[in-house]
Amino acid sequence: MTRVTVWNEYRQECTDPEVRAVYPDGIHGAIAEGLQAAGFDVRTATLDEPEHGLTQAVLDATDVLTWWGHAAHGDVDDAVVEHVYQRVLDGMGLIVLHSGHFSKIFRRLMGTSCDLKWREAGERERIWVVEPSHPIAEGLGDSFVIEREEMYGEHFDVPAPDRLVLVSWFQGGDVFRSGCCYNRGRGRIFYFRPGHETHPTYFQAEVRRVIANAATWATRPRGSRPVHGNSRPLEALEPR
Amino acid sequence: MTRVTVWNEYRQECTDPEVRAVYPDGIHGAIAEGLQAAGFDVRTATLDEPEHGLTQAVLDATDVLTWWGHAAHGDVDDAVVEHVYQRVLDGMGLIVLHSGHFSKIFRRLMGTSCDLKWREAGERERIWVVEPSHPIAEGLGDSFVIEREEMYGEHFDVPAPDRLVLVSWFQGGDVFRSGCCYNRGRGRIFYFRPGHETHPTYFQAEVRRVIANAATWATRPRGSRPVHGNSRPLEALEPR
Amino acid sequence: MTRVTVWNEYRQECTDPEVRAVYPDGIHGAIAEGLQAAGFDVRTATLDEPEHGLTQAVLDATDVLTWWGHAAHGDVDDAVVEHVYQRVLDGMGLIVLHSGHFSKIFRRLMGTSCDLKWREAGERERIWVVEPSHPIAEGLGDSFVIEREEMYGEHFDVPAPDRLVLVSWFQGGDVFRSGCCYNRGRGRIFYFRPGHETHPTYFQAEVRRVIANAATWATRPRGSRPVHGNSRPLEALEPR
Amino acid sequence: MTRVTVWNEYRQECTDPEVRAVYPDGIHGAIAEGLQAAGFDVRTATLDEPEHGLTQAVLDATDVLTWWGHAAHGDVDDAVVEHVYQRVLDGMGLIVLHSGHFSKIFRRLMGTSCDLKWREAGERERIWVVEPSHPIAEGLGDSFVIEREEMYGEHFDVPAPDRLVLVSWFQGGDVFRSGCCYNRGRGRIFYFRPGHETHPTYFQAEVRRVIANAATWATRPRGSRPVHGNSRPLEALEPR
Repeated sequence: MTRVTVWNEYRQECTDPEVRAVYPDGIHGAIAEGLQAAGFDVRTATLDEPEHGLTQAVLDATDVLTWWGHAAHGDVDDAVVEHVYQRVLDGMGLIVLHSGHFSKIFRRLMGTSCDLKWREAGERERIWVVEPSHPIAEGLGDSFVIEREEMYGEHFDVPAPDRLVLVSWFQGGDVFRSGCCYNRGRGRIFYFRPGHETHPTYFQAEVRRVIANAATWATRPRGSRPVHGNSRPLEALEPR
Repeated sequence: MTRVTVWNEYRQECTDPEVRAVYPDGIHGAIAEGLQAAGFDVRTATLDEPEHGLTQAVLDATDVLTWWGHAAHGDVDDAVVEHVYQRVLDGMGLIVLHSGHFSKIFRRLMGTSCDLKWREAGERERIWVVEPSHPIAEGLGDSFVIEREEMYGEHFDVPAPDRLVLVSWFQGGDVFRSGCCYNRGRGRIFYFRPGHETHPTYFQAEVRRVIANAATWATRPRGSRPVHGNSRPLEALEPR
Repeated sequence: MTRVTVWNEYRQECTDPEVRAVYPDGIHGAIAEGLQAAGFDVRTATLDEPEHGLTQAVLDATDVLTWWGHAAHGDVDDAVVEHVYQRVLDGMGLIVLHSGHFSKIFRRLMGTSCDLKWREAGERERIWVVEPSHPIAEGLGDSFVIEREEMYGEHFDVPAPDRLVLVSWFQGGDVFRSGCCYNRGRGRIFYFRPGHETHPTYFQAEVRRVIANAATWATRPRGSRPVHGNSRPLEALEPR
Repeated sequence: MTRVTVWNEYRQECTDPEVRAVYPDGIHGAIAEGLQAAGFDVRTATLDEPEHGLTQAVLDATDVLTWWGHAAHGDVDDAVVEHVYQRVLDGMGLIVLHSGHFSKIFRRLMGTSCDLKWREAGERERIWVVEPSHPIAEGLGDSFVIEREEMYGEHFDVPAPDRLVLVSWFQGGDVFRSGCCYNRGRGRIFYFRPGHETHPTYFQAEVRRVIANAATWATRPRGSRPVHGNSRPLEALEPR
């Protein structure tokens, strides 16, 4: 059974009544609930736990990590980021959600600014499948609607995705590459756009479906183990 | 000076007064005018000319070919398609416009159905730059608007573009990968979405800018000449 | 259980004693044996059967088709190619082997010449994993050797692979992109280089492993079903 | 005229007689000589200059930066790396050479370990063009040989290149993705493998040709300027 750790900053839910009203059990609670219902073995971890809840033991027992952060990216300890980073390169899946685009871990893995446009206007978002053959699109139909969301617009300063699966349309006139797949080292990374803290996005069935599909995709058994370094100093493979 | 041949089906302009009113000199006339103003050496060719105006001599003297067709894809002679195809693989640039997505030449080069959604409702289109570092985006700002256009929507059944430069937003709720770059053989191909025959799209400055940028991109001096076949039957490069 | 149809030209085994000595049950026999041992539900089909053994009923009951052809590409009926083509775009996996690079079906799906260099010198080939995170590389280590093979060398005139998994080194000084993944429509395509008819390549464990991995990859449950055409002529999704 | 800054660690040339014998004017001297001969406006900068010779003023006057480092990556000041990084995202071209794969700037831009295999055996390297349509391949033919070089082998732990142009064959049995293009932010990055300090690689015509081609490619005028942030807080582009 795939082991998913759902990480959340979990501060606005504690301090902002509007957010708490939407996510009384925290954003991580809503995400975890969806993944449990989809059959994953789920645990949660939050910023203000020791080591942010992401000890090496937890990471070693995690097949896929989901990441939601917003207002406190700078409070995430660099040593924890380093542990997460090494685990991703070694094969742990990573699903970065919404404002996690500015997290230390995502910026480090992307190598770019990860900047974008945004507008908080509670507008309608329609998410289109542009790569229907991808397993993350399974069961989605050709598009689905989120009634109210924060807008994120292009230009999104990330490397061109290894595969682009979803593109968002916003009522206010913007588009966004909302579902982006990356391979880095032995790990798989999925960026998924929706999920502002004042909207009940993570309770919506289609959003939960995408996250569950992504968790399955990111943990697929895979690949060979690469060998690096000066492993054969004395002789070539094909001597003459 | 880069030599561009602007190809057009040129039938609806002759038979449909609504289209003729918009493009009295043909769609090719409007496209050619824009390219001439941008400094290209332009000629035109149309379906009902002998060999559709695309003799081998014309193709050999063409650095970039633009292609607009709509209602008569089936009337394009397979032999001409073959000549165009070979020239593209040998390095001629190709810019496929709007309903040219269903042309024989584009489908042959893509290897897929090239199908899509469409709706003729004269709705607003906003075209976003998602790859601002690409030369085809030069001078565009971050988006531009076409006041009325036919809608093309996802899913667009093409191979994932080698580079995706533009994405369209439509008033009616759809998105579309509107500016798609491909390398095939030694040639460069750009698909550009706008240009329904009942809208004056090819007179608009930003649209002309994209086509001119694409013509420059598609003719960039480039590359080495590949060698194929059994060129060295008797000895290896690195004998032992 | 995944249903694989192993297609083979099966002529040289019948007419050339050197080939028959290596593949007494045909190349398809050796490939089928490997796939059966890996747990697939396998059938075979060959050129000289009616409809080349690829009736619509067979194709409809096929999850993944493997293709080996060499001397008789021109004898494959265009109608059968069309059926295979439509099935691939609709989601059937396709594994194209060795000289199948020049088959009608592969050239049609790629849209390029698919030409390459070649040399029959029975030289050593070492196949390297360049994308160890890919499921087709599972269990391979970082490289493996085929003692004697025909050389295929660059330039290989195909679209840049959606993912490049394997690169070959040849004793004689050449390299080749030997394991190339493509998504086309709803289908997945894998080109795998080795398998000249005079070498016992398809009996080798690592080669069988790659083909089995590719069959699994190409049949992964996946995606949503795209909608095309003028499905909403009267109203927009987001009317105003 | 394109302004290139050639950066070099320049320590082994000062301390190791074997290296000094090959590069009496430093590795940067040899690279700069090649670029000057190709018509670029070239300056050099080295590690032990103040700010490593890369002041903000120098970077602002640089269109393309080339980077060679090997034994002292850790001595490069993080503040200088930050300046270079920001300039690349803002459009400065970057050519990373040989052991620069482990430099701070390359690892930061790639987001991966950038690890690889290596063997110092002075073996023959043959570099193949796999993307002949790319401008970096211009004038190369289909392959060229470096008589003696250090081996770098797969797996090379970088993101899949946006375009893969060159692949190396090594006498000892290895292959390597030797010419890798990336777009990051508004900048273009090219990794080029050859150039061990004990071999006269940077005096060879084909190697100089690749570096000059890459400098031209990396400075191509290009693109639009992206807009990020909350630039339109009060109203949508398309209000209803």
